[in-house]
Amino acid sequence: MDLFAYSDLRKFCEQVFTEMGCPPEDAELASDVLLAADLRGVDSHGVARLIGYVRLWESDRINPTPDIRLVHETPSTGVVDGDSGLGLVVAPRAMEIVMEKARHVGSGWISIKNSNHFGIAGYHAMMALKEDMIGMAMTNASPLVAPTFSTDKLLGTNPIAVSIPAGEESPFVADFATTTAANGKLEILQRKEAEAPLGWVQTADGEVSTNANELKQGGALLPLGSDREHGSHKGYCLGSIVDIFSAVLSGANYGPWVPPFVSFLPLPDNPVGEGIGHFVGAMRIDAFRPAKEFKDHMDNWIRTFKNANTVNGQDKVYVPGEPEERMTQERMSSGIPLLPPVINDLKSIAEKFSLSF
Amino acid sequence: MDLFAYSDLRKFCEQVFTEMGCPPEDAELASDVLLAADLRGVDSHGVARLIGYVRLWESDRINPTPDIRLVHETPSTGVVDGDSGLGLVVAPRAMEIVMEKARHVGSGWISIKNSNHFGIAGYHAMMALKEDMIGMAMTNASPLVAPTFSTDKLLGTNPIAVSIPAGEESPFVADFATTTAANGKLEILQRKEAEAPLGWVQTADGEVSTNANELKQGGALLPLGSDREHGSHKGYCLGSIVDIFSAVLSGANYGPWVPPFVSFLPLPDNPVGEGIGHFVGAMRIDAFRPAKEFKDHMDNWIRTFKNANTVNGQDKVYVPGEPEERMTQERMSSGIPLLPPVINDLKSIAEKFSLSF
Repeated sequence: MDLFAYSDLRKFCEQVFTEMGCPPEDAELASDVLLAADLRGVDSHGVARLIGYVRLWESDRINPTPDIRLVHETPSTGVVDGDSGLGLVVAPRAMEIVMEKARHVGSGWISIKNSNHFGIAGYHAMMALKEDMIGMAMTNASPLVAPTFSTDKLLGTNPIAVSIPAGEESPFVADFATTTAANGKLEILQRKEAEAPLGWVQTADGEVSTNANELKQGGALLPLGSDREHGSHKGYCLGSIVDIFSAVLSGANYGPWVPPFVSFLPLPDNPVGEGIGHFVGAMRIDAFRPAKEFKDHMDNWIRTFKNANTVNGQDKVYVPGEPEERMTQERMSSGIPLLPPVINDLKSIAEKFSLSF
Repeated sequence: MDLFAYSDLRKFCEQVFTEMGCPPEDAELASDVLLAADLRGVDSHGVARLIGYVRLWESDRINPTPDIRLVHETPSTGVVDGDSGLGLVVAPRAMEIVMEKARHVGSGWISIKNSNHFGIAGYHAMMALKEDMIGMAMTNASPLVAPTFSTDKLLGTNPIAVSIPAGEESPFVADFATTTAANGKLEILQRKEAEAPLGWVQTADGEVSTNANELKQGGALLPLGSDREHGSHKGYCLGSIVDIFSAVLSGANYGPWVPPFVSFLPLPDNPVGEGIGHFVGAMRIDAFRPAKEFKDHMDNWIRTFKNANTVNGQDKVYVPGEPEERMTQERMSSGIPLLPPVINDLKSIAEKFSLSF
């Protein structure tokens, strides 16, 4: 795989978002969010998705100059209308609002409607770290997941991210889809023409399957837990909570009505809300106990887990966020690897906008 | 199994808590929480645990007349010191505080230290429903769970409960351990001398196992997801978030330092905090959008999932909370079944306090 410098990819993304009509600060912010995925090793959510955003914009489903507004609020809560903007811009703006609320009353919680896909949830949650706050972000997404006992795809992979500051240690950053495996993992197997482990997908009839292409044949992703015996009803609960907090609270589309990310699929009939939904939050650490005290204990917590004994064949126990932190350092210095199809997509975007790539 | 009337069991529990020295309103509240578990079918957390609380009290680990205090607060957050009280009493009191905060500023979030086991998380989360609020409750617990790739037991089954009001439909109530299977499920298999499914437990060396008695031989429960390939790192993230929100934020014991529920096990050396920790929250629905609007959409959400197509061999898709709601109605009318060992425990408690059972 060819390696690309962070700064080059970022500059290219900024140019593309500018060509789409985004104001300079929005083009910068959207690029920052997108590249954070590549740095952290979440390749499916980085520049590989740029073409998806371009296509949505071409289909008039992205407003490059949205009027992002707080349409309802209390001192600690509110609803933001994203005005069909890029989720990459809408979500960080909403994070700024919850952090402002947390500064005033200890915590802030915003449900967001009328948005689009927001990149990696972890980026938004991590914004809170710099002010010694816990950050949270979640989003609903296109329906690919069947609830326990069902053959219908009613939920998205609906990720949850939680970031928690530490002292000397790197922060705790959890960011995960509420399915057994994210769709990006299946795409990797499809490219390799490999089978999927049992428990990732089911057939259109709800039977077990190892076919990595099952979704194209009417199958579904499975909630975290895979089957009832292994707790899939818990993954189903988690995905549902994300859907309700993100969309039923805000007035976005939920469940099977969530619009698809890919522009070639039609929008669902009879929408129940506006766009897709997110939910973000922030809690000031010192709204609970002195930040120094908390961070000392977080360091102890993190070291306890990092230094735990390992099972045979593993050399270390990871703390959430640690592998992504290491990947960021590595890719910042040696570059970001891109697959040939992604490079081709970026070249076609460059051609479309008469940019160089 | 013998069936017992709700009112008889409840009266008995009230008498026992009164004998332990609890004030009348605390004895009532603790009994209400305990019996809610039996009604909802979570038999492991109901009157079967009464003897555990009695033994903790006998070991001077329960203060029957705690001074439950808010020791730090902002308009939307705070820390409660449970003063070694029954978690069954401390948690609902903290819920009252978060609901009061939500009334004023839209949401309320309390981290709790110096408490004991609080029964089912769902009881506390559901308290918010009567005021059209979303309720949340979580708790850490004795370390029985190994993080992904580790042989050390560093987390409890750390449950999360979220309750969400609906209109004509029953509320959405999720309440689940962040492990593949709760410890109570293993106990059922132990009594039957049956094997556990692969993915519930591991041996002391971290190997896969189907031995339902594995924990007694140094083994551990597995986080939701069972193994890395099926997302156990996500269950590990969830259990960690519960531990940190409940205990690192409040100043309770976390990770391997959480005191055991059973009184015959010694308390960990060098505690890092006070007692066990919980985290509770409430958000007013109309702090986001009008409650009627929200509840109409929740009804639509719930009906969409309830009416989804089923896989072969299943006749219905459940909405979280629905089976427990049905069980409650059934057991309220026909009685609560108790196993012979539980009946014996209750008889021995009756004898101890010269009560009749």
